Amino acid sequence: VTFSISNIRAAYERLSGIAIRTPILHNQHLNELLGAEVFIKPENLQHIGAFKFRGAYNRLCQLTEIEKSLGVVAFSSGNHAQGIAYAARLLNLPATIVMPSDAPKIKLEGTEKLGAKIRLYDRKTESREEIASSISAQTGQTLVPAFDDYDVMAGQGTCGLELVEQLEEMGKVPGLLLSPCGGGGLLAGVSTAVTSLVADIKVYGVEPLTFDDHFKSKMAGERTQIDPGAVSFCDALLASMPGELTWQINQQTVTDYLRVSDDEVAHAISFAFRYLKLVLEPGGAVALAALLHNKIEISNKTVCIILSGGNIDPTLFCECLANYPAP
Amino acid sequence: VTFSISNIRAAYERLSGIAIRTPILHNQHLNELLGAEVFIKPENLQHIGAFKFRGAYNRLCQLTEIEKSLGVVAFSSGNHAQGIAYAARLLNLPATIVMPSDAPKIKLEGTEKLGAKIRLYDRKTESREEIASSISAQTGQTLVPAFDDYDVMAGQGTCGLELVEQLEEMGKVPGLLLSPCGGGGLLAGVSTAVTSLVADIKVYGVEPLTFDDHFKSKMAGERTQIDPGAVSFCDALLASMPGELTWQINQQTVTDYLRVSDDEVAHAISFAFRYLKLVLEPGGAVALAALLHNKIEISNKTVCIILSGGNIDPTLFCECLANYPAP
Repeated sequence: VTFSISNIRAAYERLSGIAIRTPILHNQHLNELLGAEVFIKPENLQHIGAFKFRGAYNRLCQLTEIEKSLGVVAFSSGNHAQGIAYAARLLNLPATIVMPSDAPKIKLEGTEKLGAKIRLYDRKTESREEIASSISAQTGQTLVPAFDDYDVMAGQGTCGLELVEQLEEMGKVPGLLLSPCGGGGLLAGVSTAVTSLVADIKVYGVEPLTFDDHFKSKMAGERTQIDPGAVSFCDALLASMPGELTWQINQQTVTDYLRVSDDEVAHAISFAFRYLKLVLEPGGAVALAALLHNKIEISNKTVCIILSGGNIDPTLFCECLANYPAP
Repeated sequence: VTFSISNIRAAYERLSGIAIRTPILHNQHLNELLGAEVFIKPENLQHIGAFKFRGAYNRLCQLTEIEKSLGVVAFSSGNHAQGIAYAARLLNLPATIVMPSDAPKIKLEGTEKLGAKIRLYDRKTESREEIASSISAQTGQTLVPAFDDYDVMAGQGTCGLELVEQLEEMGKVPGLLLSPCGGGGLLAGVSTAVTSLVADIKVYGVEPLTFDDHFKSKMAGERTQIDPGAVSFCDALLASMPGELTWQINQQTVTDYLRVSDDEVAHAISFAFRYLKLVLEPGGAVALAALLHNKIEISNKTVCIILSGGNIDPTLFCECLANYPAP
């Protein structure tokens, strides 16, 4: 595997002064509830409300001048879309994003507001891969994958490198880290960073219960596709199979996978509203849900969780609060 | 006036390692919208979801051993209540809080959960001052005022001292600071800190339009009471007259007062949900509302705002989002 902490260090330099150095937060109520010391990396406070800007910018800033003049194309339900759109705007290059017509409104509007051209598609009848390839062939625009790409992974990994730096400044050594897992790009980047820098740290990927392709792949010992008709409201984590490159890495660096139900995630969203004062989207709340619902024993440990995004429509957010009014 | 930066420095030492050092946030969309560089001090991320813990702890930790054994009493609609309750719990002393029966549920529940004894009163027929004085007389518990107290003000001022330190680390010099203003305690502490540390900084207090007692007092040249029957949903800022001690200080340190309507505040709450990914309560959002609604010219300036709290009931929060769905 030609991917290591060096890739992430290089990405960290490229992103320096450009990505937001999101803070480390902690919460006394959460710590008391869990009997552990939990440090939160709130990537919902990153540009565009999700970690995806890190990987997008690290990929786009390395394009050649000719590639830059032609621009980029990507497909995404919304956070990669906005990450690409914002990175493209900063680098002054055109971007086309293929988005499902049922993507969260806040993500569609956000992507449009950032100046990207949007091509909507119907998830039931059209293939986003085919549409994007066809646009790329016709326009010469570079197709930028959402996760299965070393530069994208390296960008996401800066979140882990930064986290370790910040904990060091606080004199803390994390024993466990929980990260959301969709296609596995954030997890591959972050797990590479933290396992390179912290001895004996254990890294867990957290998936929606119905999109547990990494969990099943680990059981099977090979990349396994789950039912592509599965449903979850974690719109950012709906990959039905681990990426080829991400899986090679995560096989080496990830201890295990945890799974959370949509109800558990809705509860975590409400908990974050009430106690953390943070707005989380479903995919951004899975690691918190895993802790709150005791998916892993953490008593007396130092635990880090990545809250990866906060782009959620008001209606859905308020449904979560209504269903879990006093968590 | 026997109040200066020295009081705040002493409080800062007492709170070191105990209060949360809330981060400084910034947001590209907000900066572009306003044509300015805005730095956000999110005190909704402080213990108990509001800055009030700072003042409460600074006051309580200085009680004598006899006073500690008897405990404290306070009256508050909710944030001072929770600040006192949490500080009392940390210091292992009993606390009684006199709270209006129509206080936000999240604040009532939060105060109770922290172990304080709650005495509810009816805002229309009872006097909270009389109830609290009577409790104090009967029990010997020390009455801790919400704002008109030098130790409380010094504690709140640590928020300003910390902010200046953090901006210095970032190489930034603020030109303006906007802080919420209810009784004027946070404003007195913060304005004392920042005007002592930053040359030529201008400090503005932001009030609900219907609770503009500081604005009117400044016009009149003396402490002025507004209509005590006035109404605003900014429950944390419902003081009808500036404090005696806070006013003496704010007269020296505050440049002017800005006023925002409840609708403007509801919009700011929705804006913070969508773009900042922060949960703000009405009183915590007034400084943001003042910027978004152009209450002051800030083009090309470096501006700090204090977002002072995030304890808001889900129902009210969702009403704000519904009324301003795409700010």
